[in-house]
Amino acid sequence: MPVNHKYILASRPKGLITPDVLQLHESPLPTLEEGQALARVKFLSIDPTMRVWMADIPQYMPPVQLGEVMRSFGLAEITESRHPDFKRGDKILGLTGLQEFALVTRQEARGFQKLPFVPFLSDNHFLGTLGINGLTAYFGLLEVGKPQPGETLVVSAAAGATGSVAGQLGKIHGCRVVGIAGSDEKCKWIKADLGFDAVINYKHPDWKAQLVAATPGGIDIDFENVGGEVMQAVLDRMNLHGRVVLCGLISGYTREDPAFASFAQVLMKRLRVEGFIILDYASKFTEAVKQLAMWKMAGKLKDKQTILHGLDKAPEAINMLFTGANTGKLLIEL
Amino acid sequence: MPVNHKYILASRPKGLITPDVLQLHESPLPTLEEGQALARVKFLSIDPTMRVWMADIPQYMPPVQLGEVMRSFGLAEITESRHPDFKRGDKILGLTGLQEFALVTRQEARGFQKLPFVPFLSDNHFLGTLGINGLTAYFGLLEVGKPQPGETLVVSAAAGATGSVAGQLGKIHGCRVVGIAGSDEKCKWIKADLGFDAVINYKHPDWKAQLVAATPGGIDIDFENVGGEVMQAVLDRMNLHGRVVLCGLISGYTREDPAFASFAQVLMKRLRVEGFIILDYASKFTEAVKQLAMWKMAGKLKDKQTILHGLDKAPEAINMLFTGANTGKLLIEL
Repeated sequence: MPVNHKYILASRPKGLITPDVLQLHESPLPTLEEGQALARVKFLSIDPTMRVWMADIPQYMPPVQLGEVMRSFGLAEITESRHPDFKRGDKILGLTGLQEFALVTRQEARGFQKLPFVPFLSDNHFLGTLGINGLTAYFGLLEVGKPQPGETLVVSAAAGATGSVAGQLGKIHGCRVVGIAGSDEKCKWIKADLGFDAVINYKHPDWKAQLVAATPGGIDIDFENVGGEVMQAVLDRMNLHGRVVLCGLISGYTREDPAFASFAQVLMKRLRVEGFIILDYASKFTEAVKQLAMWKMAGKLKDKQTILHGLDKAPEAINMLFTGANTGKLLIEL
Repeated sequence: MPVNHKYILASRPKGLITPDVLQLHESPLPTLEEGQALARVKFLSIDPTMRVWMADIPQYMPPVQLGEVMRSFGLAEITESRHPDFKRGDKILGLTGLQEFALVTRQEARGFQKLPFVPFLSDNHFLGTLGINGLTAYFGLLEVGKPQPGETLVVSAAAGATGSVAGQLGKIHGCRVVGIAGSDEKCKWIKADLGFDAVINYKHPDWKAQLVAATPGGIDIDFENVGGEVMQAVLDRMNLHGRVVLCGLISGYTREDPAFASFAQVLMKRLRVEGFIILDYASKFTEAVKQLAMWKMAGKLKDKQTILHGLDKAPEAINMLFTGANTGKLLIEL
């Protein structure tokens, strides 16, 4: 009698996955009800986001609950069907979970799609370059990064499934592309085979100096997969009005990092954080002052001033800003 | 003989301004050359950004050099002029510096503007609500925050010169506005007088619970002036696709904070950091896969797969992602 083997999330990981986190269970195959189909998993996609799904933190999907089959993408083939849209032999893509057989219920069926046919390509590319990773690179780079010819794009985790596509898409769009990866072998692959313009092994002692040398005109777009020290080094090289596609923070998923919390919120909630300095709007000042003055005249804009007297109050006045000693506008009258 | 008193940046501050940082100097008034004007400073604007200008860190203007007059905005009146655009008695706004008399050179003249006339308003409003603070609130909120009626806006340092305007502009645009400030008195002012919907004193022990209670529908826009723990608490309450107008990080200007460095770069360089999860683009997947497949067929998109065999490899495989053990797409074949 055929059985299903599946990994259950048994406890939440602290750092890396330890044997108590995922437990292998065996269960009989279910008898199909009307509207259900059974699919045998052929390939499982292993993605960094799985580590996020295991953690009980706010995120973009509900975390996997303890006792549930661990969530994962997979490619499967229908072995038996009582669902009108699927027949035996159909290949499907979706959240199969870490198991040998996935039950496709009526409710879950929307989450699965049939495999498109592309000649000369093995099916499992739909779990990578033509699947979740390719799509992530595509929309992340094109819709958020908005690459322009001649701009410099830096990709971290550049030899990964998503980063390697993001870098090549950057080349297709005319960017100078610099990849950051964790071994000389990876660096060689993305430079020699994928055509990255420059590569940096962040495990090399002088990698930050290499990053400076590889980005003589600064960095316009950061396709960020890593976070932490790697992201900081890239941010230090960013040009004015650069764009950071915050796609992943893999360096923070398995360790405690206080700086991680803020960027994790930006990532999970797809926030847009924009640094803002008033100088960029100088050409519109006159119009804005008129509008503000009108609101002020209309009583919609009130203010308060704290006025100190004498130039010698300046040092004390500056400190007042940081100790919270004043309300409203702080001025010195001479 | 009239003299000028001025504050020179004598050393760079570590935390707050100490007496060795700003030194008061006296010098004779200059004799004007053709194209120059002399202006007596009436009001000095004291702004948090002055602390940034004092520090030798990458920023949006060059830091003030040691030995130079400390930079500041001010309002001044022309006392003597050999400049064609300014005559005695004209009132001007600009970077006067922390001194009694500002020399307006031909080169610097562009940085000064004559004071507009608005009836019933004291001149010094052009250093606050109708000046740099009002403009910062105006463009930051409207152009970056893009407030929609009914959205929830949180403003930190809400009783400050910029925050108090940002909150009122939020009300004008139909937002529910929550202000965070550092004293009960400030909170009372922005609620009772300025019309904020809710206020939170972050020095109160349960202020984070108060923030949760004051934002039952989450937060759509953060007009961020503070950074650090205050920003983190706000980020924790942000809704999907929220906007963070990163206008200031005052909590980080006077102390060492490792988490400050990244956001400081975002602020100074006006970067746009956008969290990105592929699910938001599901409706465009089909088209994107076609495009990716075309590039793949054309040889412009190469990939590499690392394939493990057997379901029991799953825990090990997930860890490989975080130890850097694989290149390209990581799959398990069953």
